[in-house]
Amino acid sequence: MSSDRIRLASLQSKVVSAAEAASLIKDGMTVGMSGFTRAGEAKAVPLALVEQAKTNPLKITLVTGASLGNDIDKKLTEVGALARRMPFQVDNTLRKAINEGKVMFTDQHLSETVEQMRNYQIPRPDIAVIEAVAITEKGHIVPTTSVGNSASFVQFAKQVIVEINTTLSPDLEGLHDIYIPEERPNRTPVKLVRPEDRIGTTAIEVDPSKIVAIVFSDLSDSPSNVQPPDDETQAIADHLIDFLKKEVTDGRLPNSLRPLQVGIGTIANAVTSGLIKSPFTDLVQYSEVLQDSTFELLDAGKLKFASASSITVSAACGERVFGNINEYKDRLVLRPQEISNLPEIVRRLGTISINTALEFDIYGNVNSTHVNGSKMMNGIGGSGDFARNAHIAVFVTKSTAKNDAISSVVPMVSHVDHTGHDADVLVTEQGLADLRGLAPRERARAIIDNCVHPAYRDALNAYFEAASAKGGQTPHILKEALSWHINLEEHGTMLPR
Amino acid sequence: MSSDRIRLASLQSKVVSAAEAASLIKDGMTVGMSGFTRAGEAKAVPLALVEQAKTNPLKITLVTGASLGNDIDKKLTEVGALARRMPFQVDNTLRKAINEGKVMFTDQHLSETVEQMRNYQIPRPDIAVIEAVAITEKGHIVPTTSVGNSASFVQFAKQVIVEINTTLSPDLEGLHDIYIPEERPNRTPVKLVRPEDRIGTTAIEVDPSKIVAIVFSDLSDSPSNVQPPDDETQAIADHLIDFLKKEVTDGRLPNSLRPLQVGIGTIANAVTSGLIKSPFTDLVQYSEVLQDSTFELLDAGKLKFASASSITVSAACGERVFGNINEYKDRLVLRPQEISNLPEIVRRLGTISINTALEFDIYGNVNSTHVNGSKMMNGIGGSGDFARNAHIAVFVTKSTAKNDAISSVVPMVSHVDHTGHDADVLVTEQGLADLRGLAPRERARAIIDNCVHPAYRDALNAYFEAASAKGGQTPHILKEALSWHINLEEHGTMLPR
Ligand SMILES: CC(C)(COP(=O)(O)OP(=O)(O)OC[C@H]1O[C@@H](n2cnc3c(N)ncnc32)[C@H](O)[C@@H]1OP(=O)(O)O)[C@@H](O)C(=O)NCCC(=O)NCCS
Ligand SMILES: CC(C)(COP(=O)(O)OP(=O)(O)OC[C@H]1O[C@@H](n2cnc3c(N)ncnc32)[C@H](O)[C@@H]1OP(=O)(O)O)[C@@H](O)C(=O)NCCC(=O)NCCS
Repeated sequence: MSSDRIRLASLQSKVVSAAEAASLIKDGMTVGMSGFTRAGEAKAVPLALVEQAKTNPLKITLVTGASLGNDIDKKLTEVGALARRMPFQVDNTLRKAINEGKVMFTDQHLSETVEQMRNYQIPRPDIAVIEAVAITEKGHIVPTTSVGNSASFVQFAKQVIVEINTTLSPDLEGLHDIYIPEERPNRTPVKLVRPEDRIGTTAIEVDPSKIVAIVFSDLSDSPSNVQPPDDETQAIADHLIDFLKKEVTDGRLPNSLRPLQVGIGTIANAVTSGLIKSPFTDLVQYSEVLQDSTFELLDAGKLKFASASSITVSAACGERVFGNINEYKDRLVLRPQEISNLPEIVRRLGTISINTALEFDIYGNVNSTHVNGSKMMNGIGGSGDFARNAHIAVFVTKSTAKNDAISSVVPMVSHVDHTGHDADVLVTEQGLADLRGLAPRERARAIIDNCVHPAYRDALNAYFEAASAKGGQTPHILKEALSWHINLEEHGTMLPR
Repeated sequence: MSSDRIRLASLQSKVVSAAEAASLIKDGMTVGMSGFTRAGEAKAVPLALVEQAKTNPLKITLVTGASLGNDIDKKLTEVGALARRMPFQVDNTLRKAINEGKVMFTDQHLSETVEQMRNYQIPRPDIAVIEAVAITEKGHIVPTTSVGNSASFVQFAKQVIVEINTTLSPDLEGLHDIYIPEERPNRTPVKLVRPEDRIGTTAIEVDPSKIVAIVFSDLSDSPSNVQPPDDETQAIADHLIDFLKKEVTDGRLPNSLRPLQVGIGTIANAVTSGLIKSPFTDLVQYSEVLQDSTFELLDAGKLKFASASSITVSAACGERVFGNINEYKDRLVLRPQEISNLPEIVRRLGTISINTALEFDIYGNVNSTHVNGSKMMNGIGGSGDFARNAHIAVFVTKSTAKNDAISSVVPMVSHVDHTGHDADVLVTEQGLADLRGLAPRERARAIIDNCVHPAYRDALNAYFEAASAKGGQTPHILKEALSWHINLEEHGTMLPR
């Protein structure tokens, strides 16, 4: 086993227990860990760290690709081991600690974390902990189900711990394409011009002497918790597909569309699934994360190729894909998130980007992160990297939340992650607003007429009309602009009384 | 004259009066006009159009590079000729019409306008009106003091009017570098890796048969109206230069810094001027617009090279530069704004970007455009293209406006153009807040301690502390978040009573 998975013989002596490896992580350290959208995180080492922290308290800065599975954020939070966390998370317990001001959370565009490290603007990791399927003859590290920030963490860290996941086939080797941009001022163009281009290596290059510990683990990724489409997510998917069909008919898009980026979550998955019955052909994906729906499309022959930084799928889909990876390898590539999300490439390719909003307002400003202006949900993730540079930036959401107590279409969003400049198309189950080229007052008309839930339509119209009478490019009545959110806080509902 | 300036003989017969050329512009047309930050706009033709509109009313969509000089926006507004305007403006009369909802204004990232035209997401110009110093032997158009969107307008328009400005030397030929990205999906990397790289042609390529009229004009660019530094702009410059010195001392920047992008305006000009006495050497600029201060630095040998999309200078500086253009030509280049502002290049080079804010809030969200949430000032311009992708994104503003009646540091901005993710450093005359890597509660501390005016400090502190006690990642009290702006509307001042 050890010699299959650790092909550089001199490293075989580095195998230790998870506890021994975890003990290398000291109080005050910055730890760079693999893991992106609950895929490919190191598991045994952080879980061993949780155990040690129970008796030996410590506080670390934990930097990952994106969110982690296996309740690692939850458990690290519970033992008080997180001083700081970046750039993304999706865990209830950690979210609570962040909102209480107990963990300092830096929410970042996912393409930017390692750029900032490279420039010493945020601390480089003292130690990197990277999940792998194997270590090559040269001592290089073959990642698992995500690449995330792992390659740069390995480059920056003084010490590297590799966690070899024996539940995954070594045949994953060849799936990844590792490329790290040069330091400035000597940076050159990233030569990727098609989603399927390979521009790097299949393993993460590292000076083997930096690898201080190797751990074997048999823990699996947490399966995706995406819900099946319901009537509303189906309606959202239908509106969007109708819109895309019209773009093709009108000659603005080819029948293969443009590379698709689709965010994580139930709505996003429903939209992608919906493409199976669409007339589009030869689709390609240039995304952050691939969900079950990508593999439905690949299997159905609708999708030709998919590029991303991670694969986050249900248990059944995971078995199908990772159990038969050689059947998919020529149609799949996993890249560093700096490359999957790079503005340069997103703009060059011109993606159709579909991300989920918490709420948007009548002028098309989008809130992806903060409930009622204050409480962090997850983080901006890659939505900004894509929406700013996409060919068409789409934001989707159900028109209401919490049994209609909340309207997701509001007079003024309580927090802005994406400004109106960056939102081309907004979709709810009610309908679709195509905002391209419109001035704000025209956007408001399109949004109110198409997206808002009927229970809120009259109130929103009344607000817009009263504000317009006052004047402005984006007319607002500041005393009322946040009144819906204030209602919600005070009375548990935004509904006009 | 005509044969010097119109070197393709077959085009010499196209010379007409400005009035004849203007009559080609018809009601309902989309007009793509040269002009960027009041530099290089077509002058005689739009002014003739104004005259015609007095008796023959018409409404057009006017698309430019950025703002225009010679009161063209004012005059077109006064005669009611503007139905729509994009992507930027700075005129009082037009601004008023926009805010009254009489002109539909689409505010855009300046790198994106022609991208959207290319993809038929906004209308392509029916006709282009381009200021030039000459037409070459091949019929190609040599621009004047800006490039803006002219090259793409010429490519997209069915008809082209060229306005030859005889006040400018034909020696400007060679100053420009015209490059247009390919259509997707065949787009390749933009091969610019240093600000001084030339990747295109010196004139705008065009099929000469599209040139339907040529007009001679002797009208000059409006001179820059930048004010000399005052104590406050000087203090802002000093704080920023101290910060940059420390970045060099700490090894995070070389002594030549990184390519500088500096916005238009008095503060920006003061900051650039301040560099003359700094210890930095071999500076380069990769900017949108060059102001007087650029030429002070070039003359002083501090600056090695400057790249931009326009030159907007005082009358005296203009005489010096354009009267001796051959002395500057090897240290200057003017590019299409799609290239000067391209996310791909800004991120690759890693600019230090300095732009002016109207206001920012305690979490680092920046408002560049809307006074009190509703009233458009100018537009986002290139600030977003740069701030999102810069090495260090700096926003500067005086801590108060209107004799301290307005604090430019507020609990919650009334409009967001740049989210906290995209603002690294905030500076007022009070001091500088370095936000890199900080969580929002830490950002609030840094901003309140360093940037706010003393008259507002206690009130801002009180807000932040009360909000923090309520909790959240970006703690807010929604009932009070916009109360400073509401105070201003109701009582003419934000000052706590
Ligand atoms: C916005 C986001 C939180 C939506 O998540 P989702 O799981 O797809 O959507 P859901 O409709 O299930 O909403 C999630 C929760 O937010 C709540 N919610 C939705 N809209 C809301 C609103 N306007 N106000 C308050 N809560 C809202 C839902 O009720 C639900 O609550 P629950 O968890 O208690 O059931 C998520 O997509 C996200 O984090 N986006 C930002 C990151 C991103 O876009 N990444 C891009 C690529 S991965
Ligand atoms: C923000 C911006 C309007 C500031 O303009 P400026 O001329 O540099 O700065 P000033 O301090 O003179 O402010 C301009 C006006 O705004 C007013 N102002 C400033 N802060 C204000 C605030 N917080 N609330 C209301 N008004 C404010 C000033 O009083 C002044 O008013 P006046 O014209 O009646 O005198 C300008 O920089 C801009 O349009 N920026 C967006 C575009 C951009 O950044 N382009 C980047 C590259 S070119």
